[in-house]
Amino acid sequence: MTEPVIEVIAIGNAIVDVMAPCHDDLIERLGLTRGGMTLIDTDQARALYAEMGPAREVSGGSAANTLAGLAALGVRCAFIGQVADDQLGKVFAHDIRAGGVAFATPQRAGEPPTGCCLILVSPDGQRTMNTYLGASQYLPPAALDERQIAAAKVLYLEGYLWDPEEPRAAMRRAIAAAREASREVAFTLSDAFVIARHGDDFRALIDAGQIDILFANHVELAALTGCKDFDDGIAALRDRVSTLVVTRSARGAVAVRGGEQAFVAAEPVERVVDTTGAGDLFAAGFLFGHVNRRPLGDCLKLGAVCAAEIISHYGARPEADLRALTQPFA
Amino acid sequence: MTEPVIEVIAIGNAIVDVMAPCHDDLIERLGLTRGGMTLIDTDQARALYAEMGPAREVSGGSAANTLAGLAALGVRCAFIGQVADDQLGKVFAHDIRAGGVAFATPQRAGEPPTGCCLILVSPDGQRTMNTYLGASQYLPPAALDERQIAAAKVLYLEGYLWDPEEPRAAMRRAIAAAREASREVAFTLSDAFVIARHGDDFRALIDAGQIDILFANHVELAALTGCKDFDDGIAALRDRVSTLVVTRSARGAVAVRGGEQAFVAAEPVERVVDTTGAGDLFAAGFLFGHVNRRPLGDCLKLGAVCAAEIISHYGARPEADLRALTQPFA
Repeated sequence: MTEPVIEVIAIGNAIVDVMAPCHDDLIERLGLTRGGMTLIDTDQARALYAEMGPAREVSGGSAANTLAGLAALGVRCAFIGQVADDQLGKVFAHDIRAGGVAFATPQRAGEPPTGCCLILVSPDGQRTMNTYLGASQYLPPAALDERQIAAAKVLYLEGYLWDPEEPRAAMRRAIAAAREASREVAFTLSDAFVIARHGDDFRALIDAGQIDILFANHVELAALTGCKDFDDGIAALRDRVSTLVVTRSARGAVAVRGGEQAFVAAEPVERVVDTTGAGDLFAAGFLFGHVNRRPLGDCLKLGAVCAAEIISHYGARPEADLRALTQPFA
Repeated sequence: MTEPVIEVIAIGNAIVDVMAPCHDDLIERLGLTRGGMTLIDTDQARALYAEMGPAREVSGGSAANTLAGLAALGVRCAFIGQVADDQLGKVFAHDIRAGGVAFATPQRAGEPPTGCCLILVSPDGQRTMNTYLGASQYLPPAALDERQIAAAKVLYLEGYLWDPEEPRAAMRRAIAAAREASREVAFTLSDAFVIARHGDDFRALIDAGQIDILFANHVELAALTGCKDFDDGIAALRDRVSTLVVTRSARGAVAVRGGEQAFVAAEPVERVVDTTGAGDLFAAGFLFGHVNRRPLGDCLKLGAVCAAEIISHYGARPEADLRALTQPFA
């Protein structure tokens, strides 16, 4: 019996989302950036949590959400990320494994606790994220299984994890291992503020040809390229990565691969409940098409369908049967 | 400034629900009773959790859910229940306080951890509950504030908490304090298996005139009275408590107070997602009407509207604006 080959392996934050509905005046009063992601420390997390209404906890983490989507679509995945030896760490590990994703990173003893993301969900479904990285930021490069990375078709990395030093080093090492084995490296830019902090690193990786598939939304595209105009941004990046995928919220998404450019409209949704995970699940659908060698337009359509599922309910992990939903396009 | 008077004070399990959708064949394979509540120990909890799919965590506990509903309706409430000094204990305490319920029971240091309820939700919304009581079972009688109990209009108790010895003693003491102060005592029978274990205690409390308002569903009514027929069950109990409230799932609910009997149909629901908390929120709506001296039929209608809200989504804590929903009947 041969071990099943991992198709997508990802490195990302291992965090549990703590989400509560809120009115926009709370976001304003707390001085948060609506729709953005802010890193917070222990004291800030305590103060913000005290302001939040009754919440629910659902496993999250950008790349982990993408893998949960891919696994639900039948793609064999493995996740690398750091949790602590505590209750939320057990919750994270349970949920990702129960979703069919291989996850073998050992728990980390002692402080800090497992990371969490305090998410305020506005009445229109927009989410404002406040991330307490916790144990996530101590993912050691030693946690990587370079043989496993070299064996996977695609290495998927989240920009969110570029902030802390240890995971950044781990990701650089993973990129080297994947490229050495001629595997594809996919990268999601995650957030405009992350780009403000690390744009130089990201541009250098791109220009060194280290990124094969780049995921961004329109705000991140502008932040990375400095182009206010969407089309100018696409033009500035399109020749620097093999595949460029840019989402534009309700305006759909665009992908460019070589000379080819494709577009998909946003999938209609009865009611947008919570946009947390929209980009993550778009990436899942797109990568599902990509590893199955589907045409570019189909990959986008698969992304749009998965994103529509995730914004129809609270939480960034799929609830409906993604296989059934994507079946007409897969 | 006078301290706001607590209208309803409750003693109950302080637990976090861990809920995952499942197919009925899993319930069958695990030998669980569909729709029932089973007490489980640490090893059973670990084994069952490993079988469960990706889950979400939402604060629960029967009486705590009822108070969350009452607080959402504007009723001043206080909760007494035992959590441990751990992450899920913080989640429970945050959620109940953020919902507007006073909660002052100190956390308990050391093992066991905060209790949880592993809930398998069937495709038709039926829930099968597996409760790991954890710290909940060590609620000491000393945690009671007898002055607060004597000051509250209604003392509300859940039958679920009759199993462990310490909380049972605490509840007996609370009943005595409430009766001494001529306050009303409300009791929910919780589950047919709890009645199988403690029916004699419950019947003795009722016959000693210690319970003013008794909540049950039709299965519990049959278990307590030994009457298979619903109307026979009502007839057997109606003269033994001041107010009797019996729910019958989709068949609505009946209440009897003195010579008066009232009925309400179940509120129509677009899709039953998860029945967890239906009885708890029915009790919330009913008690909301009761403390506001509404006619018996209105109390039932308020119960039905709150129950309908809770079964329309995952989790046993209200998500919609209960005040707005109940406004036409309140």
